Amino acid sequence: MRIIQLNEIESLLTEIDLMPAIESGFVSYSEGQAVVPPVGELLLDRGEVHIKYGFIESQPYYVVKIASGFYGNAEFGLPTGSGLMLLFCQKTGQLKCILLDEGHLTDVRTAIAGAIAAKHLAPTNVFRIGIVGTGIQARAQLQYLEGITNCRDVLVWGRSQDKLADYVKYFSNDNLPSFQIETTLEIADIQNQCNLIVTTTPSKQPLLTADHLLSGTHITAVGSDIPDKQELDSKILGKSDLVCADSISQCQVRGEISHALRNQDIELDELVELGNVISGQAQSRTTEDQVTIADLTGVAVQDIQIASAVFESAERLNS
Amino acid sequence: MRIIQLNEIESLLTEIDLMPAIESGFVSYSEGQAVVPPVGELLLDRGEVHIKYGFIESQPYYVVKIASGFYGNAEFGLPTGSGLMLLFCQKTGQLKCILLDEGHLTDVRTAIAGAIAAKHLAPTNVFRIGIVGTGIQARAQLQYLEGITNCRDVLVWGRSQDKLADYVKYFSNDNLPSFQIETTLEIADIQNQCNLIVTTTPSKQPLLTADHLLSGTHITAVGSDIPDKQELDSKILGKSDLVCADSISQCQVRGEISHALRNQDIELDELVELGNVISGQAQSRTTEDQVTIADLTGVAVQDIQIASAVFESAERLNS
Repeated sequence: MRIIQLNEIESLLTEIDLMPAIESGFVSYSEGQAVVPPVGELLLDRGEVHIKYGFIESQPYYVVKIASGFYGNAEFGLPTGSGLMLLFCQKTGQLKCILLDEGHLTDVRTAIAGAIAAKHLAPTNVFRIGIVGTGIQARAQLQYLEGITNCRDVLVWGRSQDKLADYVKYFSNDNLPSFQIETTLEIADIQNQCNLIVTTTPSKQPLLTADHLLSGTHITAVGSDIPDKQELDSKILGKSDLVCADSISQCQVRGEISHALRNQDIELDELVELGNVISGQAQSRTTEDQVTIADLTGVAVQDIQIASAVFESAERLNS
Repeated sequence: MRIIQLNEIESLLTEIDLMPAIESGFVSYSEGQAVVPPVGELLLDRGEVHIKYGFIESQPYYVVKIASGFYGNAEFGLPTGSGLMLLFCQKTGQLKCILLDEGHLTDVRTAIAGAIAAKHLAPTNVFRIGIVGTGIQARAQLQYLEGITNCRDVLVWGRSQDKLADYVKYFSNDNLPSFQIETTLEIADIQNQCNLIVTTTPSKQPLLTADHLLSGTHITAVGSDIPDKQELDSKILGKSDLVCADSISQCQVRGEISHALRNQDIELDELVELGNVISGQAQSRTTEDQVTIADLTGVAVQDIQIASAVFESAERLNS
């Protein structure tokens, strides 16, 4: 049994092309080849814990991922997110690997899912990227968009000037993709100026409204992963031309789609699933002026694929 | 973060009195002070995986336990059961401890729950203990009954003479409690001769029938933990005077009680819960001639209590 620490995981990640693995995970999921039970959840006084688990039938492992968000951790000098992934053998149940990623692999696989959504749904001509939020996921989403679009013009919205300054400073690092980043405290600027928007906050009140959405905009919403979080006015989903879920069954109870269904802004049978868009089973955007939405609540196939890829990479290096 | 291997766990267990901790866990559960979501489950081609998780509000940790049973593992020279427990801080979500117990703590906490059920429900005068099954749990259940009853006369049922011989040989070890053990291939002998019976098999067909149950018998059923396993003819529950569940909500979908409810042999409002029997909130056996049943499907409070006790013991030793 192998235990892989965070620093080793970070080093291994630089060697692996995860995008095809995670795309293939979404396709397996949408084709019914993955067993992914409903997310386990613990709601505590100071935080929340998600347990995602499952397997893809044709593959050697099953994965259990525990990820937590404790939003008051800053007062203890600790990061908000934490967690680990466990990889077991499908044939014998033996534990093969503990990935002590402290939530990092969740950040990465979520960012890659955002990039995949943009790859398949965003307009060809992205003239400005809008990022809603300034945290780790706001950073990771932009990083992974580098390979998806040539656009380097970015507008970031946050609640505080300090956090926006930190965000800009973070991307001044020479090892990171080079973007021209402007900042704003006015959320309306995002929808007035950007046609590829990624929302990354744990907001419980809608941030983006259905007014003034630019023609051709694609929005990827990754912040809302539990039933009471919401970043988009559900009327946005009602007005859009295509609403894509990472998991239709999961999005019925979690995320932006759950609110829009409850408010009757959209109907269940209008939804498409990301894996089917990737495989071509479902129609993607057909014109440049359509408004498209991807609601990403996080599916265990992403965890299965990233954990397997990191473990197998470690095995190759040490064999 | 501490990682505790199986050999260290075994050594720590000899120093800890787990029975009061697990009794108190059942009481907290029945008093509504524990958050224990429904069990997560993966059913694979060759095995099954259970994920149990939760926390007791007044305590410092939450626990996630992954336990598996792969019944064909013998052909690979591997044990059937496997698993680990993870202990996290309720305040910050930080991982405090990985208990690499390979399923051993599940065996122990299940055996202790059996002993607790016998302590509170068995007749005062146990004249013969009947064990159904010859596996690890059949051994552990008998071991932990040592402190509960003075009876040392045991009859064990199994499907093969070899496995029965192994069972007897196992208890010839001087470090184990001294029992006089006889064996049988006839299941009816168990119910004809024993008044404290523990069933420990993964049978999918009832083994014990409702005929010839001795007056005053107590049966603890621990083998059936998924919906399609069943060790007792559900008429036994119908004919008994008291049916006790470790978790009434869980036993409605898993274990012996689920079958008896479905067959209308018992009604939901007849059930009592183990934690309430322990605390005196619910009536236990009132006469020596009553037939009582405890259906133990396994509740995460047991895992929380055993994991916390082992971790805290390790912390004390190494502080």
